[in-house]
Amino acid sequence: MDMNIDLYPSRVSSAASIKERKDPIIHSNGEGPLNQLELQSYEENGYLMKEKLFTDEEVKLMTEELEKTMKDNQSKDTADVIKEPGSNEIRSVFEIHKDSGFFEMLAKNERIVKIAEQLLGSQVYINQSRINFKPGFKGKEFYWHSDFETWHVEDGMQHMRAVSCSIILTDNYEFNGPLMLIPGSHKWYVSCAGATPDDNFKSSLQKQEAGTPDNESLSWLTEKAGGRIDRATGPAGSVLFFESNTMHGSNGNLSPYPRSNVFFVFNSIKNKIGKPYSGQKPRPEFLANRDNNKAIEAVPSNSLVGKQEVN
Amino acid sequence: MDMNIDLYPSRVSSAASIKERKDPIIHSNGEGPLNQLELQSYEENGYLMKEKLFTDEEVKLMTEELEKTMKDNQSKDTADVIKEPGSNEIRSVFEIHKDSGFFEMLAKNERIVKIAEQLLGSQVYINQSRINFKPGFKGKEFYWHSDFETWHVEDGMQHMRAVSCSIILTDNYEFNGPLMLIPGSHKWYVSCAGATPDDNFKSSLQKQEAGTPDNESLSWLTEKAGGRIDRATGPAGSVLFFESNTMHGSNGNLSPYPRSNVFFVFNSIKNKIGKPYSGQKPRPEFLANRDNNKAIEAVPSNSLVGKQEVN
Repeated sequence: MDMNIDLYPSRVSSAASIKERKDPIIHSNGEGPLNQLELQSYEENGYLMKEKLFTDEEVKLMTEELEKTMKDNQSKDTADVIKEPGSNEIRSVFEIHKDSGFFEMLAKNERIVKIAEQLLGSQVYINQSRINFKPGFKGKEFYWHSDFETWHVEDGMQHMRAVSCSIILTDNYEFNGPLMLIPGSHKWYVSCAGATPDDNFKSSLQKQEAGTPDNESLSWLTEKAGGRIDRATGPAGSVLFFESNTMHGSNGNLSPYPRSNVFFVFNSIKNKIGKPYSGQKPRPEFLANRDNNKAIEAVPSNSLVGKQEVN
Repeated sequence: MDMNIDLYPSRVSSAASIKERKDPIIHSNGEGPLNQLELQSYEENGYLMKEKLFTDEEVKLMTEELEKTMKDNQSKDTADVIKEPGSNEIRSVFEIHKDSGFFEMLAKNERIVKIAEQLLGSQVYINQSRINFKPGFKGKEFYWHSDFETWHVEDGMQHMRAVSCSIILTDNYEFNGPLMLIPGSHKWYVSCAGATPDDNFKSSLQKQEAGTPDNESLSWLTEKAGGRIDRATGPAGSVLFFESNTMHGSNGNLSPYPRSNVFFVFNSIKNKIGKPYSGQKPRPEFLANRDNNKAIEAVPSNSLVGKQEVN
């Protein structure tokens, strides 16, 4: 079998289309932290919110580290630091799991790694990581997209065998721009119209153009979901796991309350990325890890706060 | 007493400030359709949602009339027809209560007029009316503002003695950009920084600049509300009454589901508008009725559907 066969063509035609997913949603029947109900919910909806997976103390620590990292990067003008459109405010800092410090340890924490391993049915590595900050009053919306569509076309990820893990550091309300997800959308693949411009990532991290699903497909997916669009609301310390192909987006944040989170993409080591299906040159390492993709060896659950206390 | 005394100066300084409201919230102790609990809720929160005040049959009729009016105005390029920023899609059509037809009758319907009279403690007239359409996928956000601030500065409305009435024609969900309100904000007046440009209304109806409250005031109001920001969600046929000075805004609409409503601003006949406090020339009649402001004589509740059946 051709290792590079394109199971999910997109941006290859002037017309959009919807196809059935060709990969399992849950890749193992093995044991893990999630119970049957949780697995069923993930399978059905394409996401799972684990409430308060981290304690208030741990959230405090993560928030301090996030603020420190943001501050350290405020004056940096490099590709892995993303600013708000039309302002100098930092929106994301990438590759934080390679900081040889706090976030590297967090990325290995067994509380999240074991869940990723259970869902993906293998050992895992981090394909992308970042911290996100959505300021109050002026946080901009992010339009609907499937992450997998981009990872497939632009990074050469062959299979839907990755899971995003968002550690929520601020209470997420209905009114401060929480992530919205179309439940069940992960079971379908929206092949998007158009082509990928060169160096698309330079603008797509602020506002995606190529790989944008069409209105008809979005309506169809939402109808399939019985008109439901779910919001990832919950208290700080909760963790949202969502499938690589789940259609998601978010509104702007008009409220005074900023939102921040730590974001890891776990990919199966059996699904390492290859040549981009677009035929273009690979995106930079900070967006899609190729050089540093050894399987994670999980560290004990209590290592976060423990480590901090020793230092 | 100087009839034109400025109780609520705004856009007169380079700094914003918050002052206490100088007018009652409910202007009568008289009888009316609202019970004590509803009056208390309006007094406390600055708004009241009456669920399903209109039947499904009436909503269907209103929607047909709205679509007809939208269509009739699609190709019009006049000031009272407002398009989406960056597109040709109609967002609002103004002065619909002067259509000598359906919407004129609707504006007089006793189901809404009697509530307005009860809240304002007098007979009322319509100071502004419009139909609003917020398309799916691309409906834009509208930032926080107090309507009264604009009506005061730009239209010369002296007192807070007006109420907005929004008849919701589509189900309002958390995810299709419902109106957001800061409960209790109507008890405070945010004097905004800056000045009013000439002919401000030509751009402010798409995106408000002058009269935009500052972040500090918005944070203060939200803290005062215990961190609450309410959303006007509910089924089609519901009617939102909100006080002229209640701080409100709305997110974009990323969902496939458009939102539409019919919007009337009832003002007390004892609060007719005068000379703009900005010292500038008055805004056009379609935004602030000066010529045609006789007290409304309410028509019976059942006149909507009844009238239609006869024709």
